[in-house]
Amino acid sequence: MYSSESLQQFARQVFLRMGCPEADALLASEVLISADLRGVDSHGIARLNGYVRLAGLNRVNPVPAVRVVHETPGTAVVDGDAGLGLVVAPAAMRIAIEKAKQVGTGWVAIRNSNHFGIAGYHAMLALPHDMIGLCMTNAGPLVAPTFSKDKLLGTNPIAVAVPAGQEPPFVADLATTTAAYGKLELLQRKELPAPTGWVQDAAGKPDTDAHAVRKGGALLPLGGDREHGSHKGYCLGAVVDIFSGVLSGANYGPWVPPFATAGFMASAAQLVGAGTGHFVGAMRVDAFRPAEEFREQMDNWIRTFRKATPVPGAAQVLIPGDPERQLAEERSKTGIPLLPPVVENLRELAGKFGIDAEFLKL
Amino acid sequence: MYSSESLQQFARQVFLRMGCPEADALLASEVLISADLRGVDSHGIARLNGYVRLAGLNRVNPVPAVRVVHETPGTAVVDGDAGLGLVVAPAAMRIAIEKAKQVGTGWVAIRNSNHFGIAGYHAMLALPHDMIGLCMTNAGPLVAPTFSKDKLLGTNPIAVAVPAGQEPPFVADLATTTAAYGKLELLQRKELPAPTGWVQDAAGKPDTDAHAVRKGGALLPLGGDREHGSHKGYCLGAVVDIFSGVLSGANYGPWVPPFATAGFMASAAQLVGAGTGHFVGAMRVDAFRPAEEFREQMDNWIRTFRKATPVPGAAQVLIPGDPERQLAEERSKTGIPLLPPVVENLRELAGKFGIDAEFLKL
Repeated sequence: MYSSESLQQFARQVFLRMGCPEADALLASEVLISADLRGVDSHGIARLNGYVRLAGLNRVNPVPAVRVVHETPGTAVVDGDAGLGLVVAPAAMRIAIEKAKQVGTGWVAIRNSNHFGIAGYHAMLALPHDMIGLCMTNAGPLVAPTFSKDKLLGTNPIAVAVPAGQEPPFVADLATTTAAYGKLELLQRKELPAPTGWVQDAAGKPDTDAHAVRKGGALLPLGGDREHGSHKGYCLGAVVDIFSGVLSGANYGPWVPPFATAGFMASAAQLVGAGTGHFVGAMRVDAFRPAEEFREQMDNWIRTFRKATPVPGAAQVLIPGDPERQLAEERSKTGIPLLPPVVENLRELAGKFGIDAEFLKL
Repeated sequence: MYSSESLQQFARQVFLRMGCPEADALLASEVLISADLRGVDSHGIARLNGYVRLAGLNRVNPVPAVRVVHETPGTAVVDGDAGLGLVVAPAAMRIAIEKAKQVGTGWVAIRNSNHFGIAGYHAMLALPHDMIGLCMTNAGPLVAPTFSKDKLLGTNPIAVAVPAGQEPPFVADLATTTAAYGKLELLQRKELPAPTGWVQDAAGKPDTDAHAVRKGGALLPLGGDREHGSHKGYCLGAVVDIFSGVLSGANYGPWVPPFATAGFMASAAQLVGAGTGHFVGAMRVDAFRPAEEFREQMDNWIRTFRKATPVPGAAQVLIPGDPERQLAEERSKTGIPLLPPVVENLRELAGKFGIDAEFLKL
């Protein structure tokens, strides 16, 4: 187990060595480690090397001039100048929050960005302002729409954070696929098959091979197949792609750059937009009803759902955000577990950048 | 088969007899028949009798004073004065569109309303204004959250309509459950079992009995079970409930009034809000990028997805809105098929209100 402080300190130093300004390195490391704390290990420190590699390929600009290229009182389009999504998304969220203060809600579409870590982090930035936060992003194509053999969508997550009163906030953060790619990787390591509805093979037939995506297959939209509503997961992933990519002027569909494929820039000439796209929003609660009233009703909502009768074998009905928050509390005390290849990788980064990493030598 | 014009004319006369003003009767009948045209038969003319019954119970006010009770430049809360949702939702959407004209986007939470027909109709009202339309509603509790035996959510649909250029618009309209209740009713009539992941029984165990909900069971959130992502469907249904109910001051969760249960008003004293809640939004495309540019990219998005290689056995990859639009084109020519009990029901209404219904005597 590794303390979240040590890991964040380490990530911060790597971002500094990449050329990021001090404030950006701090923010990026905080967003990254928040994923490890909340149990989304695939989006945390394990990705640090990927960002370094992107920077080496000049696909990440460590000193971006993030700027508003178009705006109205309630909306903006932000060009991330190829910066880290970890830094660009919070900047866009701040703009959305300022606009919400002025006109009730603020909505910002972002182009020319990169992978932004976990969507939930950015949505939650609205909470201290008594606002509801929304955040989504498109991503490299791993998902086949219903009836499609081709991969045209990313796992395209949606996050919604809603403030409560005495209860902790409601935080939904979900990929629009049946399962996240990280869960497939877990099964791969254990040499277990995937449940039905998670993947299809290269011929477009339902498959249970946890390695199917690497073999030319695809992840499936939430629902899995038509009979179980995969067309709905496809609709949701498509909405995320359109809001993040088409509205902002970023790439969309099959053109979204994969996170860390070295050869990708070769096809830049055929792109339909700039980099990866995100879409964020903030809605002031008191633009709808007094915040105090809202908080009381949210507490009632949360308590009502939490005290529902559980089905046989389940301990309790959970509120969106419960599992991640509980894990974050635990991991901030006990530390974060890392797989041996991730530790090895961090040691290499330490060597490469000459960073003290005594804490990695367990 | 019955012509959509005759059915709409008939519905209009029934709404007039219920006491609706001329313009409202026309609008309500149009919304209702749009469901039949688009193939959402469960939300169309088959529900006419339900609205009549609600009016008879004084749960629908035929002459509502729909009014804004709170607003900012970009948001509003509308009190529907217990009017037909079929009329209240378009009124709220018009307010959202006006606000979007001013500040880029407009968002309206609606309380004290009733069932509003199909969400897609209202979202599509934004399209002629070069705006993206969003629409959602909560509904009477039929759905058990993940791990819950109790029914706490409605089928809580989300609709998103996006304008394109030469291609028809993108229109996603989806219940946040694996399957809509109407699909279960089809299986009931055919005496067929339900696929796994659609329902659970009264004990909270997975079930394939198409009658499970009537026997104390529940519909399941999109995903069906935890392994297939039902917690994501639960998150989405919960977001719809919070936006529609908690933000507006309507009822939410288990308190949302069922569409047409006669005895329901008895528990009015324990309600947490007013009537059913909706949430609608409009986003001006050119609040983000020039509309012409956006339309071109949407055409490219649509064509790219439509020409994807289909999986074996499928003819083509569909764009959200394709099936409904194709059916509407067909049914506006050939007419709308009605089940014998629905026709019988319409004849009774004709008798009750003294409306000429020659066309129903096929």
